[in-house]
Amino acid sequence: MKVRNILGERFKERAYDIESQNLMTRGGYMKQVGNGIYSLFTPAKRIANKIEAVIREEMDRIDGQEVLFPVVMPATLWQSSGRFDSIGKELLRFKDRSGADMVLGMTHEEAAVHLAMNVAGTYQKYPFMIYQIQTKFRDEPRARGGLIRVREFTMKDAYSFHTSQEDLEAYYERAYRAYERIYARVGLPEVIAVKSDSGMMGGKVSHEFMLLTGIGEDSIVFCPECGFRANMEACEALIENTADSELLPLGDVFTGEAKTIEEVAAMLNVTADKTCKAVVYQRNEDDSYVLVFIRGDLEINETKLTNLIKAEVHPAVEIENADLTAGNIGPVGLKTKATVLFDRSLVGATNLVCGANREEYHMSGFNPERDLPVGTEFADIAKAVEGGVCPNCGKHSLSINRGIEVGNIFQLGKRYTEAMGMTYDNENGERKHPIMGCYGIGVGRLIASVCEAHHDDYGPIWPITIAPWQVQICALRIDDEGVKSAAEKLYAELVASGVEVLFDDRQVSAGVMFSDADLLGAPLRVVISPKTLSRNCFEFSARDKSFRDDIAPETAAETIRNMIAELVAKVNAKVPESI
Amino acid sequence: MKVRNILGERFKERAYDIESQNLMTRGGYMKQVGNGIYSLFTPAKRIANKIEAVIREEMDRIDGQEVLFPVVMPATLWQSSGRFDSIGKELLRFKDRSGADMVLGMTHEEAAVHLAMNVAGTYQKYPFMIYQIQTKFRDEPRARGGLIRVREFTMKDAYSFHTSQEDLEAYYERAYRAYERIYARVGLPEVIAVKSDSGMMGGKVSHEFMLLTGIGEDSIVFCPECGFRANMEACEALIENTADSELLPLGDVFTGEAKTIEEVAAMLNVTADKTCKAVVYQRNEDDSYVLVFIRGDLEINETKLTNLIKAEVHPAVEIENADLTAGNIGPVGLKTKATVLFDRSLVGATNLVCGANREEYHMSGFNPERDLPVGTEFADIAKAVEGGVCPNCGKHSLSINRGIEVGNIFQLGKRYTEAMGMTYDNENGERKHPIMGCYGIGVGRLIASVCEAHHDDYGPIWPITIAPWQVQICALRIDDEGVKSAAEKLYAELVASGVEVLFDDRQVSAGVMFSDADLLGAPLRVVISPKTLSRNCFEFSARDKSFRDDIAPETAAETIRNMIAELVAKVNAKVPESI
Repeated sequence: MKVRNILGERFKERAYDIESQNLMTRGGYMKQVGNGIYSLFTPAKRIANKIEAVIREEMDRIDGQEVLFPVVMPATLWQSSGRFDSIGKELLRFKDRSGADMVLGMTHEEAAVHLAMNVAGTYQKYPFMIYQIQTKFRDEPRARGGLIRVREFTMKDAYSFHTSQEDLEAYYERAYRAYERIYARVGLPEVIAVKSDSGMMGGKVSHEFMLLTGIGEDSIVFCPECGFRANMEACEALIENTADSELLPLGDVFTGEAKTIEEVAAMLNVTADKTCKAVVYQRNEDDSYVLVFIRGDLEINETKLTNLIKAEVHPAVEIENADLTAGNIGPVGLKTKATVLFDRSLVGATNLVCGANREEYHMSGFNPERDLPVGTEFADIAKAVEGGVCPNCGKHSLSINRGIEVGNIFQLGKRYTEAMGMTYDNENGERKHPIMGCYGIGVGRLIASVCEAHHDDYGPIWPITIAPWQVQICALRIDDEGVKSAAEKLYAELVASGVEVLFDDRQVSAGVMFSDADLLGAPLRVVISPKTLSRNCFEFSARDKSFRDDIAPETAAETIRNMIAELVAKVNAKVPESI
Repeated sequence: MKVRNILGERFKERAYDIESQNLMTRGGYMKQVGNGIYSLFTPAKRIANKIEAVIREEMDRIDGQEVLFPVVMPATLWQSSGRFDSIGKELLRFKDRSGADMVLGMTHEEAAVHLAMNVAGTYQKYPFMIYQIQTKFRDEPRARGGLIRVREFTMKDAYSFHTSQEDLEAYYERAYRAYERIYARVGLPEVIAVKSDSGMMGGKVSHEFMLLTGIGEDSIVFCPECGFRANMEACEALIENTADSELLPLGDVFTGEAKTIEEVAAMLNVTADKTCKAVVYQRNEDDSYVLVFIRGDLEINETKLTNLIKAEVHPAVEIENADLTAGNIGPVGLKTKATVLFDRSLVGATNLVCGANREEYHMSGFNPERDLPVGTEFADIAKAVEGGVCPNCGKHSLSINRGIEVGNIFQLGKRYTEAMGMTYDNENGERKHPIMGCYGIGVGRLIASVCEAHHDDYGPIWPITIAPWQVQICALRIDDEGVKSAAEKLYAELVASGVEVLFDDRQVSAGVMFSDADLLGAPLRVVISPKTLSRNCFEFSARDKSFRDDIAPETAAETIRNMIAELVAKVNAKVPESI
């Protein structure tokens, strides 16, 4: 293809803070149509097609059967699993012309069970896995970062069905490996798997595949000592307290206008870890209150809180109706209708400052295990902290990094098959519910993630396996007969041998030509100009600057093909064996 | 792949009247999820993937650039073209979580203009064509026939942009040819192009690609004399009248309860073509009345009527408010608020019977050109009829057949670029609106159409180029060691050489195995059984029964590969050259 013919314009001005969004906008990869809704130009679509081909191959390798589910589904399907009511506004609901309730598919567990329901009634049909690559819509409140977090996206989603937990686990291992292969094949071997929270999907064991990057939306907890890693949402927090030798008596202290932990701690000259703070939430469903007491230096992990009380929550907007004294809430002598919870960080803590439940006063000498009623339960609700205790090896070694989730896999269990009444007859003729796993990858986010991981200031550096074009020919001074004939000959030769070539034969300056080539990100580049021809050569270089050679025009096509093969081999060298 | 592993069940009982729906349901190709909404099992998805690959190649061949538009679009985009208001309920409208109006894409002219809008500002960028293959949703009131008419469907839609009508026309020719190539390549060379009505798309010239079949929803008008063909909707009706030698005077006739043309003609002993009937419609927008007078033996072409009055209409539900005497409406002495139109079939007609505008009476001796006011206009509103006059060659040769539309192409003109304000600067620096063409093919309907055209009583007969699998191996009596080793060896050999093979190694009867193979429709079949092995051969046959040979086990793989190549060559022989 010729650069002159690609629809889309490239420009120099910085467009966005997030680098993938910036470079892919400046490079003419996409255009926003609405909030979190994009059209893709050809360069991005070509990348998407290649990624989809890799995904398809890897899904087929683990015995996946490609199917297609609908984007628009009747609400009845989602009612049969209970999710029509339990999922929030991110599930887009509407009525069709006949007034029937419909939804836009944001995930397809229900559709997968529906498809398999009446055609897998005996154990001999198991296990099987079905997958699709299709458009999904999730009505995200916070679309951001270009293709990083959108409302409409192309996703591969797969669903496996099993007759035993062991079989699910064995398959889950294969899928996990298939995912590692996919990331490696698209040039992102640095993606790591972390344990995650299963959230609205149901099920127990799940992993997220994460690309570590500063722009990530997730916090990943690592232990460099033992290799433990988990999404912050799913990471157990082990908090240690050093007990004071003497337990002080409880007593009120005047704190006046001091309300926040920082203000109170400063006024009383204690550190935040010697305080107990109150954090108030409201349940989304009915705005009822949930009050959590936690050591003052720690934060609440809302996912763990949600899992604990089995209800979605949001930070309390106002607490006037809750009989609580904002800024002075304390666990002793508290009268409230709120659900009251205590974090494990209070176990073993001594002589804390806490609220006194009256204006302008706090208490000192709060010793949770002495002052709270016998039988008070302490739950794991806190976020893990940098330098905290690793839940796996017990060392004070935790490190926290930002990451983008580029895929996830779940052991769903029987959540959907039970709810929807899908059964099979086992060897003994007993009717059973199949056990499911599900496996997702967003294609657009993966493109953006590759760009995040592989770019320089001038543009993306696409891995050879997914680059929209493998090679770009820059013909400087196409008005020069020698340049024209040499460039056109090379272009024709490469195209004929199946190489994906972009040919820039525009009459533009070297600056414009090279900055466009940088934005288009072909991993290999050939420059043909009167200058190179005067040396009887072409200039051959890598977009990542790893080499820059003069090559002979006669053997240029062959040299380029060999280099493509070499780059592909380099990518493949990092791909683990399948299981 | 092994038959035992394919998700989906096959069964014998007739399921539906329409053969493609029946066979594809019985063969485990698809499952209905809601009204006009289907999931596809793997066999159908494999066919779809192959058809999409053919389409992609042909679109690339005519310099198309693959892009991706969103399924969900903000209403503002459709408001900018005016279609948010002008299109009926088939455009699904809804609000997102923020209350913004959104639509589900049923076509993407607006999205195409939006994408190209700011990146094609000078004439040098033209022409270009962008296309996508994606899910669309059209809220059809009458979903029917399985994949024939659905609400959600996968479609290839392409949009070309030009700076002159000549350039559009030249490109339109190339697209037309690309479409012929696509149908031929997927094994449906019998598809024909007919002139069509452009409907809601706007523009003047358009063609539909039609597969002639009794289950088709469209009427296609042909002239076997000159090759003329058109969709009934767009076909000019040339009606001839033989004038009586003497014009009778107008006069009332008592007709009592006779209301319909049949009743009145019978009572007065005239033929229907010697009557003038009144047909009443209402405009969809305000239910106002439209009254059409037409020769009694003819029917109204509602598309032509809609184009004439520039408003969508429906047959009148009740005419009580219209000051009309139902069953006795006539053109003479008529007082009504309705819009009154006269069909050209009344020109030259003499001595007709028509309504008298009072209960129980008609008139005889109605001579339109004598009795209607001077200056009355006669428009072409009638449907063409079997044996009618060809608008091209003038012979009484028209033949009418049913057809399924499997694609369409339109010369859109500036309808969208003007409405949305898309411009470019021409050679003289003048600001102009580009001229567009658009080109659509529905993938699912094409699959069903191939099945309609190529099946027998036992199942589909898929053309080699789109068959889900090219060959099926039926191993009868897999418990026989010889059968098992021979079948597995052939399967492995074929898979290794890239042949798409389906292997049935189930312990089922020959009847079940063959009827499943018939439903799965692989064009080639190899039967391996103790009986064939006793003759030291495999049985090799075509699904379409064109041959059935004994082949030697040693060279079976090669024989099969050669036959595949031969079948592919046969298909390709019917593919016209591209332009």
